[in-house]
Amino acid sequence: MMTLIDRAREGVMDPIFQRACAGEDVGPEELARLVAEGLAVIPYNPSRGCARPVGIGQGLRTKVNANIGTSKDQSSVQMELRKLKAAVGNGAHAVMDLSTGDDAGEVLQAVLSHSPVPVGTVPIYHGAVMCRLSGRPVVDMTEDEMFQAVELHGRMGVDFVTVHTGLTRQALSHLVDQGRLTDIVSRGGSIMAAWMIHHDRENPFARDFGRLLEIARRYQMTLSLGDGMRPGSGHDATDRAQVAELLELGRQVGACREAGVQVMVEGPGHVPLGQIGANVQLQKRLCQGAPFYVLGPLVTDSAAGYDHLVGAIGGAVAASFGADFLCYVTPKEHLGFPDEEDVAEGVRASVVAAHVGDLEKGIRSAVRRDMEVSRARRAMDWDAQREAALFPWKFDRVTGMSSQGCAMCGPLCAMRIAQEALGSWKKV
Amino acid sequence: MMTLIDRAREGVMDPIFQRACAGEDVGPEELARLVAEGLAVIPYNPSRGCARPVGIGQGLRTKVNANIGTSKDQSSVQMELRKLKAAVGNGAHAVMDLSTGDDAGEVLQAVLSHSPVPVGTVPIYHGAVMCRLSGRPVVDMTEDEMFQAVELHGRMGVDFVTVHTGLTRQALSHLVDQGRLTDIVSRGGSIMAAWMIHHDRENPFARDFGRLLEIARRYQMTLSLGDGMRPGSGHDATDRAQVAELLELGRQVGACREAGVQVMVEGPGHVPLGQIGANVQLQKRLCQGAPFYVLGPLVTDSAAGYDHLVGAIGGAVAASFGADFLCYVTPKEHLGFPDEEDVAEGVRASVVAAHVGDLEKGIRSAVRRDMEVSRARRAMDWDAQREAALFPWKFDRVTGMSSQGCAMCGPLCAMRIAQEALGSWKKV
Repeated sequence: MMTLIDRAREGVMDPIFQRACAGEDVGPEELARLVAEGLAVIPYNPSRGCARPVGIGQGLRTKVNANIGTSKDQSSVQMELRKLKAAVGNGAHAVMDLSTGDDAGEVLQAVLSHSPVPVGTVPIYHGAVMCRLSGRPVVDMTEDEMFQAVELHGRMGVDFVTVHTGLTRQALSHLVDQGRLTDIVSRGGSIMAAWMIHHDRENPFARDFGRLLEIARRYQMTLSLGDGMRPGSGHDATDRAQVAELLELGRQVGACREAGVQVMVEGPGHVPLGQIGANVQLQKRLCQGAPFYVLGPLVTDSAAGYDHLVGAIGGAVAASFGADFLCYVTPKEHLGFPDEEDVAEGVRASVVAAHVGDLEKGIRSAVRRDMEVSRARRAMDWDAQREAALFPWKFDRVTGMSSQGCAMCGPLCAMRIAQEALGSWKKV
Repeated sequence: MMTLIDRAREGVMDPIFQRACAGEDVGPEELARLVAEGLAVIPYNPSRGCARPVGIGQGLRTKVNANIGTSKDQSSVQMELRKLKAAVGNGAHAVMDLSTGDDAGEVLQAVLSHSPVPVGTVPIYHGAVMCRLSGRPVVDMTEDEMFQAVELHGRMGVDFVTVHTGLTRQALSHLVDQGRLTDIVSRGGSIMAAWMIHHDRENPFARDFGRLLEIARRYQMTLSLGDGMRPGSGHDATDRAQVAELLELGRQVGACREAGVQVMVEGPGHVPLGQIGANVQLQKRLCQGAPFYVLGPLVTDSAAGYDHLVGAIGGAVAASFGADFLCYVTPKEHLGFPDEEDVAEGVRASVVAAHVGDLEKGIRSAVRRDMEVSRARRAMDWDAQREAALFPWKFDRVTGMSSQGCAMCGPLCAMRIAQEALGSWKKV
């Protein structure tokens, strides 16, 4: 069986390339070339065949992911479907179901059935839930169970899976050696670290990376190499543990490409604004241009309640440096379990950040949109402003708009005064 | 009469330096030196004597301004006092009353009476209101009326005034010559341009800058040199018209310093993310390190309804490059007249941006705050997290917090799992 990357390399024009380049600056042939070279991915599990496949990577619009999913104490299929709807309805290009409730399998099945966009998961969570349900500590998970969880998700139709393959004993030793303010804040990373320390063994996904590749090939799943060592505070950013993991991920990207498996790389996390550029450049260089999927980044630790905004600051900067895929952060981050309104607000913040990044990347549709809004603003054409806006519904309750000015400034309208005056200057 | 800058230069330790350095990394002597050299300002009109003077400039915390004020169709003293309270209560270090309603004078009097923070205005608006009330077009304003408006505000106790002194015929000629997508979007700038074109005369504030300096000295007002040519769209950013005005402002900064008048310089506006650094560096160089007061900047034109977030992205980046004073943008920007909740949201967004900038500037209190939050997070100490947070009230409705994890992830808590595991590694 050929994977998408195999077909792209052999010049077989899979219809997916045509579908995934809708709204992009690149055509299907160029997208196929990017996939062939590993510079872009199209997370797409053919056994499910999601309705709206998207490309993620070089030359493409910056994409937005929304994490949804239950926790042990907050678990409802209906709530997750409402969050899915809120995510997709507000512009998420993909969702990850990170459920860890007792009925995580049922929730994932429902999300896969209803999602028009690619669905990702972190299969190790499944293993953790299984352990909990059978009364075993998480470190009792067997290596087989780890790989079986990945395989199960592939069979269920998941499009991309996060696997923490780079959190090796080498990376861990840097963490222990240097110390950290916030240790490990990746759930998958913490499970892998606990397992490795408990058994005094290497990360099974790293040691037996070939077995992971086989599963990924079999189900045509895109691998999203997780950053288990992502910093949990600005203080810990870009430290040796994080970079040691990234080095390993870079090596594994090469193995994925050899195996014809699509791969992207995950990145932080809590990162001071001034270190974001270095993080993007480092990832792009060490991982040979593989698509970069960042969480936030969060440029301060202190703004709980506004972390969607903090993530939008970091996401906009990351995208402008070349990050390809932004994982949103909701206003509930660091506070509690998000509901559908939190999901909606988080997605909107990331949509803004992605658009800002696209303006810097020179994505034509983004540049055109800003021009159209501004032209409409100058013309005081409110319908045209609404039409070009990222959030047209924000205009619904606006009143007092006219070609003589608007409710914002009243009759003292700079645009109108300037236009009249400049018109007469030009006549002179 | 000596101005604050005179006293600073002569080594007279005015109590204001002690009061304004509360919470700063610098002490009163250093602050006095910064003021003497024009690298920082303390907008403070002694005839009012505001309760919380602040310093703005090099080495100081990034400050936040909130614009309030009426328009012709939305004018209520009570509403403006509520907006003032919302602004100050959420962390604004200064407010500008930009009222243009018929009772603008009454509103300003009320704001000056109630504001514990420095108050700024754009006096030319007063002239425009006077014209409207007497049935004259705005271009009929006399030169004397322009200067008299500045003087009136000085007498009323205003701490800093925006005057569009750099919008000269030279700058206008660049605008006409090159064309723009959105002409002029500064209200003061549009009035000046219309007046100059109508009368075919130079900008009175530029031509007779000395008269402005006399008034500023007499009332010890800080001048905020306005950017009437600020771009109203990303497309127009950093163009010849904008830079021509900035050149003139740089020259005027020198004149202010000679006259012992405190001065800061206003900047854009709508600026693509990748041009913000250049804008800050250009202002700092051309204006000899004078404090830079930016509006936003807004890094996209397309996100009406979320322009507070767009402004926070731009503001964080600008502050990280050295901008000193961030003017907030409310969620109503480009849509309508803000109410007190819009003011509150706008201020909070700018408070985040300023804090992110302060982390990059190495401001000790900001760095300490992030460390304290992160340490508390690791310790799962929710009280300590709340205490160090920028928005402690966001923790009020958080439930399910415990030292075993929180409602966010439930029992699958990365921090707890990692701490337990790393504890046992360390023991080995």
